[in-house]
Amino acid sequence: MSESAVIAVDVGGTSIKGAVVDVNGTVLHARSWPTPAAEGPDRVIGAIRGAVRDLTADSGAAAAVGVVVPGAVDSDAGIATYSANLGWRDVPLRDLLAGDTGLPCVLDHDIRAGGVAEHTIGKTAGVDDSLTLIIGTGVAGLITSGGRFVRGAGGIAGEAGHLPVWPDGEPCPCGQRGCLERYASAAAIGRRYAARTGTAATSADIVGRLETDPVAALVWHEATSALGIALASCTMLLDPSVIVLSGGLSAAGERLLEPVRAELASRVVWRPAPAVELSDLGARAGLLGAAILAWRLAGATDFTQWTPETSA
Amino acid sequence: MSESAVIAVDVGGTSIKGAVVDVNGTVLHARSWPTPAAEGPDRVIGAIRGAVRDLTADSGAAAAVGVVVPGAVDSDAGIATYSANLGWRDVPLRDLLAGDTGLPCVLDHDIRAGGVAEHTIGKTAGVDDSLTLIIGTGVAGLITSGGRFVRGAGGIAGEAGHLPVWPDGEPCPCGQRGCLERYASAAAIGRRYAARTGTAATSADIVGRLETDPVAALVWHEATSALGIALASCTMLLDPSVIVLSGGLSAAGERLLEPVRAELASRVVWRPAPAVELSDLGARAGLLGAAILAWRLAGATDFTQWTPETSA
Repeated sequence: MSESAVIAVDVGGTSIKGAVVDVNGTVLHARSWPTPAAEGPDRVIGAIRGAVRDLTADSGAAAAVGVVVPGAVDSDAGIATYSANLGWRDVPLRDLLAGDTGLPCVLDHDIRAGGVAEHTIGKTAGVDDSLTLIIGTGVAGLITSGGRFVRGAGGIAGEAGHLPVWPDGEPCPCGQRGCLERYASAAAIGRRYAARTGTAATSADIVGRLETDPVAALVWHEATSALGIALASCTMLLDPSVIVLSGGLSAAGERLLEPVRAELASRVVWRPAPAVELSDLGARAGLLGAAILAWRLAGATDFTQWTPETSA
Repeated sequence: MSESAVIAVDVGGTSIKGAVVDVNGTVLHARSWPTPAAEGPDRVIGAIRGAVRDLTADSGAAAAVGVVVPGAVDSDAGIATYSANLGWRDVPLRDLLAGDTGLPCVLDHDIRAGGVAEHTIGKTAGVDDSLTLIIGTGVAGLITSGGRFVRGAGGIAGEAGHLPVWPDGEPCPCGQRGCLERYASAAAIGRRYAARTGTAATSADIVGRLETDPVAALVWHEATSALGIALASCTMLLDPSVIVLSGGLSAAGERLLEPVRAELASRVVWRPAPAVELSDLGARAGLLGAAILAWRLAGATDFTQWTPETSA
């Protein structure tokens, strides 16, 4: 296959998704592996290295490797600094993978990578003032202002998951109360349903029961209200023209979009509310972002051939 | 005096402040007039035109005129679009004043002008990632990210006064509930105190009674808590290195700064809290901003001689 492909890997709390992606965004191979999170960080690191080795073998000779992980990441140093879900601290993952493969590697944050994908080939591509909200196990945002990413003084702008939506609300492990992420992440929705019913359920299960299960409807109402309130804060501060909802929860489609739009519209009365749209990329945003970052590392600058429909 | 000075005017709900300012930021004359807001918008417009005429006569021959007003302003068109307090709509104030004086004129929003002053000669000058919160009759913010102003798609970013601090809280004329401005503006502090005591008081009166009047202490606690919660939202989204509190309420000094810092610190636990500082400019920020805008219109580009101590 030669160097016409890159390896992309998106490490999540439950699965490691991998793909071999050509320069037009076409997926040549795709595989996934369970994340052995319960067996400790060393096993997770071993699984990631195994995944990259397997994909490298699949690809023949790849041009570069892009890996995205949750938690805190120092992308300049190539270090996975911290992840509560995966239990690691200060893992020099980029250099480990470069040593294993002999290829140039890039390590980044899964949410940031998802935002890169949205801003490169998704609905905010070319939009000067935008917000992409990635809603998965956690919630985070990527902001553009005047055509540039808002990074912040310490590179940690966009932490929309810790907007204090109800400031006297549920305690958050971050130390605050009432954070958006405590109500509206996929993890929170499942947890809040289980707390009220004693029954484990995924956010997808809960969305499937909205018409028949009042507890599911209540938990979903709280989640979408929290999102609408948080988006009102984002609108007041940032004045974006487009807000895109991405990440795993965006699979809920209109059942997510409609109540979030309604809550936002009820709160943004004196000025026009920004457009709120569903991502075309959804849960694939992180993996696509890893592929784009790897291709950039390999020197690619033109992603106009990549489309949400054909990519990854 | 020749063209070595500009006319600066800051129109507020209670007074019109004017100054003749030289190119080093030194105030050559300063005057103020009551704002005849109760007599209707035509009288207010007449008072502004009279103020500018008087100051022009004082100055001999000025280089330019800068006027800043509250409410909504279309600065490109030179139109004061709307002010609830002053009762006007679509006043072509820039062209009126240019016709009266024969001088080049600039019209802008008082809060934005205050932010320009803070970012030109105040504590956020040269700071890449900053937030200036102007707290007066209303509350508004000016944001920099990566060294550039965050303007938003419609030019109305920074509306921190309408962050939903307590989303089920007090109704706001903007149509939302629980806006920061309903708790923490100087007007709100006075109103909330009067509602509980039946006694009219300014925010300065209330600050003077904190040790002796439990209602004053409660109203002030609510105001500073609301500010701390709103600044937590700003910190999560924008990651500024410095937040500056400006506008009339900053005259409260440490009594404002300490509780706001404490509330913010209690909510920003997993990451360092940004520095929160009091403005050096305070209630003069709008007038200084008007002078800076006028000098820019007259071609000045160097404001390094202007200092918070000597200016306006």
